[in-house]
Amino acid sequence: MNNDKVKRWIRPSVLAASAYHVQDASGLIKLDAMENPYTWPAAIKQSWLNCLADAELNRYPSAAATVLKASLRRAFAIPEDIELLLGNGSDEIIQIIMMAMTGQDTVFMAPTPTFVMYEVIAAAVQARFVGIPLQQDFTLDQAASLRAIRDYQPAAIFLAYPNNPTGNLFDSKVVIDIIEHAPGIVVMDEAYHVFAERSFLARIGQYDNLLIMRTMSKFGLAGLRLGFLTGPVDWIRELDKIRLPYNINLLTQMSTTFILDHIELLNAQAGAIRRDREALYQALATIPGLTVWPSATNFLLFRIEQGDADRVFNGLKQAGVLIKNLHGSHPLLAGCLRVTIGTPDQNQLFLEALKFTLQRQD
Amino acid sequence: MNNDKVKRWIRPSVLAASAYHVQDASGLIKLDAMENPYTWPAAIKQSWLNCLADAELNRYPSAAATVLKASLRRAFAIPEDIELLLGNGSDEIIQIIMMAMTGQDTVFMAPTPTFVMYEVIAAAVQARFVGIPLQQDFTLDQAASLRAIRDYQPAAIFLAYPNNPTGNLFDSKVVIDIIEHAPGIVVMDEAYHVFAERSFLARIGQYDNLLIMRTMSKFGLAGLRLGFLTGPVDWIRELDKIRLPYNINLLTQMSTTFILDHIELLNAQAGAIRRDREALYQALATIPGLTVWPSATNFLLFRIEQGDADRVFNGLKQAGVLIKNLHGSHPLLAGCLRVTIGTPDQNQLFLEALKFTLQRQD
Repeated sequence: MNNDKVKRWIRPSVLAASAYHVQDASGLIKLDAMENPYTWPAAIKQSWLNCLADAELNRYPSAAATVLKASLRRAFAIPEDIELLLGNGSDEIIQIIMMAMTGQDTVFMAPTPTFVMYEVIAAAVQARFVGIPLQQDFTLDQAASLRAIRDYQPAAIFLAYPNNPTGNLFDSKVVIDIIEHAPGIVVMDEAYHVFAERSFLARIGQYDNLLIMRTMSKFGLAGLRLGFLTGPVDWIRELDKIRLPYNINLLTQMSTTFILDHIELLNAQAGAIRRDREALYQALATIPGLTVWPSATNFLLFRIEQGDADRVFNGLKQAGVLIKNLHGSHPLLAGCLRVTIGTPDQNQLFLEALKFTLQRQD
Repeated sequence: MNNDKVKRWIRPSVLAASAYHVQDASGLIKLDAMENPYTWPAAIKQSWLNCLADAELNRYPSAAATVLKASLRRAFAIPEDIELLLGNGSDEIIQIIMMAMTGQDTVFMAPTPTFVMYEVIAAAVQARFVGIPLQQDFTLDQAASLRAIRDYQPAAIFLAYPNNPTGNLFDSKVVIDIIEHAPGIVVMDEAYHVFAERSFLARIGQYDNLLIMRTMSKFGLAGLRLGFLTGPVDWIRELDKIRLPYNINLLTQMSTTFILDHIELLNAQAGAIRRDREALYQALATIPGLTVWPSATNFLLFRIEQGDADRVFNGLKQAGVLIKNLHGSHPLLAGCLRVTIGTPDQNQLFLEALKFTLQRQD
């Protein structure tokens, strides 16, 4: 079959792009994707199934998702005068924001390295993405940020708070300076807020251009794909026009509403993960030839100072542990690997495999 | 709060648009949205819940949805050399197609009146939508279509087969003429194929520009939001680059895979709906002052020839039956209403309410 039509009609930047690559995790201990390693106790699982027994799968889901939104407001103390926009994960919310704002020469901005989907989705909507390099210690470069804001006039700036994959919280004074100088919106991406216990949510009313994005994915519900954006009504009303009307399926609406009534379970899991993160941090900090950074998330970033990060990554994989190799993805991440906090047993297995791999490569 | 930033940064066409309106159906017999009125027998529902008990909600869903795709291939006899793209309903698939193709002055085309989302999503991606009016009897205007193809050079033509809201199947010879003259792709939207028992699926290999879109929504799974596009690998590979990697949540993947193993249930429900459609068609055809069109879908389009369609629509609503008012949406649909086929009892209640309302307005 002749594919001249493909070349004529698919945009050149799409033809040139490669598909998003997801690592094959079959049979491996999965510490690559910032998933919560815990499931639900049998009694809660049974209550959830009892609740789904009432699902009218033959009917369209609620387009306004009124019940789910009320649950999210209660669970996360979102005031009534602040609106909510729901998406299939943060991914769809980023796409909605960018679709609503992209015109001629629109720029989206973020400090880099950061969550890759800001740049991926900007390309998909044909906007320009400008990344402002973080400093060597992964803090924001205030002067470079303000200069870039002035020069590029970004429609939206995405600040992952805390940042992925560096794990740190940016200085709130610098963040506020950015919000005050931004000509468009600043989206604080608080995907990891349960592990950071810090948020800009209380500041939403203070700025006309501040929005907060969150996701249930790191909180234990990655399979459901629910993200939300909260901010001033004026913004959310416009963004909601781009949202496909029935974007959030019925089972995600019902299941999220259900588990938010048991939020103490998710909070306890997050608490365990925070504690285990500190234990793993201490353990990694004692390993010679390795630098590990403090983290406000459910993962740890570390650098193989002596040796070859690719070989360590592959050695771990051969030992049955899948983490994320960041070497080669950004100059600041040379030699860097990222491990998600698992259960204590998984963390221990990872540690042993890492030590074994590091010794073997000497 | 000052919203000058909203006006500066949200695109003017989004600011000018109104949000997609969903009718409030609380307490009404819902015959407005082409939903299958039937649920599942208790034993099948229990097997489904047993299956969901194994759901790892804390893990991301399969990005490639390999298991679900294999089920769809088996259920719908999709050959191995034809690829699949999955979306949250047809809506997301239309959006993916349009995002991948839209550049400077891109045109998307469809005969009108038709499914409204082609035009809504074209606007969202900043492409031009050109509608080619159907003829008075809702057949394709072959000459006007070929002329428009030549003049506008559309990147994609969407042909709903059968068409919503007119309910008819287009002449396959005219469709093939359009496929052969189209410079870009032709997407046959077979959302209603189980009620039509006609499809272009077998012709996919014959044309390098033919793709087929389907959805599980009318087949009994509207709550799950699963649509799929099938066509030559060359096209699907490129479109898949625009798809957000984890777009189909875990529960939709598991539930659809589950019920496709019981496809005889859904087929039997579709068979009952087809029979009841014929009965309701015959009943409507006997009502004076009303024209009803034959249908290859799970709805019937009818025109109030004597009287006021808005008043009939509102009268039905007061009587507790929600249908769709199409009067005012397109010149060819003046005086037209659309009713989804419900259970025999629901259809009977609708008929009685309709007769009562028609008498009352005399």
